[in-house]
Amino acid sequence: MSTLGFVGLGIMGKPMARHLITAGCAVAVFSRSSGPAEELASIGAIACNSPRDVAAKSDIVFIMVPDTPDVEKILFGKNGLLEGLKPGSVVVDMSTISPLATKDFAARLAEKGIDMLDAPVSGGQVGAENAALSIMVGGKEEVFKKVKPYFELMGKLIVRIGGNGAGQTCKAANQIVVAGTIQAVSEALLLASRAGADPAKVREALLGGFAQSRILDVHGNRMITRNFAPGFRVKLQQKDLNIALDTARSLGLRLPGTQSAQELYSAVAADGGSDLDHSALLTALEKLGSAPPEP
Amino acid sequence: MSTLGFVGLGIMGKPMARHLITAGCAVAVFSRSSGPAEELASIGAIACNSPRDVAAKSDIVFIMVPDTPDVEKILFGKNGLLEGLKPGSVVVDMSTISPLATKDFAARLAEKGIDMLDAPVSGGQVGAENAALSIMVGGKEEVFKKVKPYFELMGKLIVRIGGNGAGQTCKAANQIVVAGTIQAVSEALLLASRAGADPAKVREALLGGFAQSRILDVHGNRMITRNFAPGFRVKLQQKDLNIALDTARSLGLRLPGTQSAQELYSAVAADGGSDLDHSALLTALEKLGSAPPEP
Repeated sequence: MSTLGFVGLGIMGKPMARHLITAGCAVAVFSRSSGPAEELASIGAIACNSPRDVAAKSDIVFIMVPDTPDVEKILFGKNGLLEGLKPGSVVVDMSTISPLATKDFAARLAEKGIDMLDAPVSGGQVGAENAALSIMVGGKEEVFKKVKPYFELMGKLIVRIGGNGAGQTCKAANQIVVAGTIQAVSEALLLASRAGADPAKVREALLGGFAQSRILDVHGNRMITRNFAPGFRVKLQQKDLNIALDTARSLGLRLPGTQSAQELYSAVAADGGSDLDHSALLTALEKLGSAPPEP
Repeated sequence: MSTLGFVGLGIMGKPMARHLITAGCAVAVFSRSSGPAEELASIGAIACNSPRDVAAKSDIVFIMVPDTPDVEKILFGKNGLLEGLKPGSVVVDMSTISPLATKDFAARLAEKGIDMLDAPVSGGQVGAENAALSIMVGGKEEVFKKVKPYFELMGKLIVRIGGNGAGQTCKAANQIVVAGTIQAVSEALLLASRAGADPAKVREALLGGFAQSRILDVHGNRMITRNFAPGFRVKLQQKDLNIALDTARSLGLRLPGTQSAQELYSAVAADGGSDLDHSALLTALEKLGSAPPEP
């Protein structure tokens, strides 16, 4: 059995690492704040002082941190993983970051004989706690096979999409669909309620046909009950759409719907709503439409 | 049992009327072209020469025609329903038309003691043929109860949303969600394939999480296999989005996502694609993104 490492023990990383530990794996852990590492040490993890320290003790190191620069620093910064990893070891980045940067990181690690998988997840904190994440993987098939037993301790639907970066591309696609569907449902329910129809009944009717989606079900209900407690925060949705739009730009693509959703999220954030659930896009749309009706 | 009328025997109306006839109802029918009426007469329908003629023979008259002006002409035009309907009879408009015009039509009929329901459907030709339509109803509860047994011969999910116009409002909401979700799925799959990820695998992974929708399932598959044979035609989606945007405008609302989808459908139509399936929105997006990638 491999010795594992886990860097980044936030609301996602900590429960994910815990599943590995309770399954009996040896796991070396590091996080910027020492609390979570100490907590996991109490159930058998090896608390470390730096990513380098984690790397020195591990064959496979998982990373779960917020954004592209965080991953870069953990990999290549002072006391980073690269200083401790042996050739033949594997880095598994489960953060949601840029697909393009991911390809670059994988290439730089490959020069040192280190394999990399990008393996971003969906399912949020609840999915992390219940080991029910969807995991979208990019990287070599044989490396995927090696890591898959550990993915199965953390997730339910595990799909290898393609080579390095393909997992992140898939996650970007996921976030485009999520945001676009939230916007579509927001526009529909807003029109319905302003036209005097009961949005709860509209949601019920729409769930029976081609308008059905998990977003209409879950986020539609949040909009109707005005429950904007997260859930998935606006500021994270903005970060993920930024990755999608940046990737599109570099590919020479225009994504007008994604751009529109990002603008509405900017309006929510400008209005102090960065920590609301992403279904709060509705509130920006309501303000756009606050002009008095035509006579 | 009421005597029924049915005006409009196109690809939707004919199979819907047929379900009423084969259930044993007396049905007076009229259509602009005489073929469908003769066909239904051969299984027991009463073929009529005008909407007025249908009205004279019926207590409840169903209408299934393409657009708002068609409904107006059938109701209030020369030899229209109003010339033949008795007070206490019911008009059930199952076309997809303007919610605002619907309220006006219902008010004008009410002056003559005639009740109206708006009852647009979703489910398309297949739903009409299999009596599996979703029916979204606006109008008085007691009128809905009277007509419900006949709706049950044509549809599966039958929901009364509210008063006159609420059915059409719900249908407009449905079309907003459908178009917006098609755009979101198009943008996601286009990004994925341009970034070198297999869109079929991306679709599979996304169906397991919050990005799940019936559109991702059905239309996503159409996009991947490039099967743009209708299905639901671009020109009808344009008509329905026009109703939604016109309703929004009159309510002082902006719907930027719906506007963006409508622009892309205009581009598909301008390119000769009016009769393609609405999943062909993807093709307009592909052309938007045909600029060469940045260096």
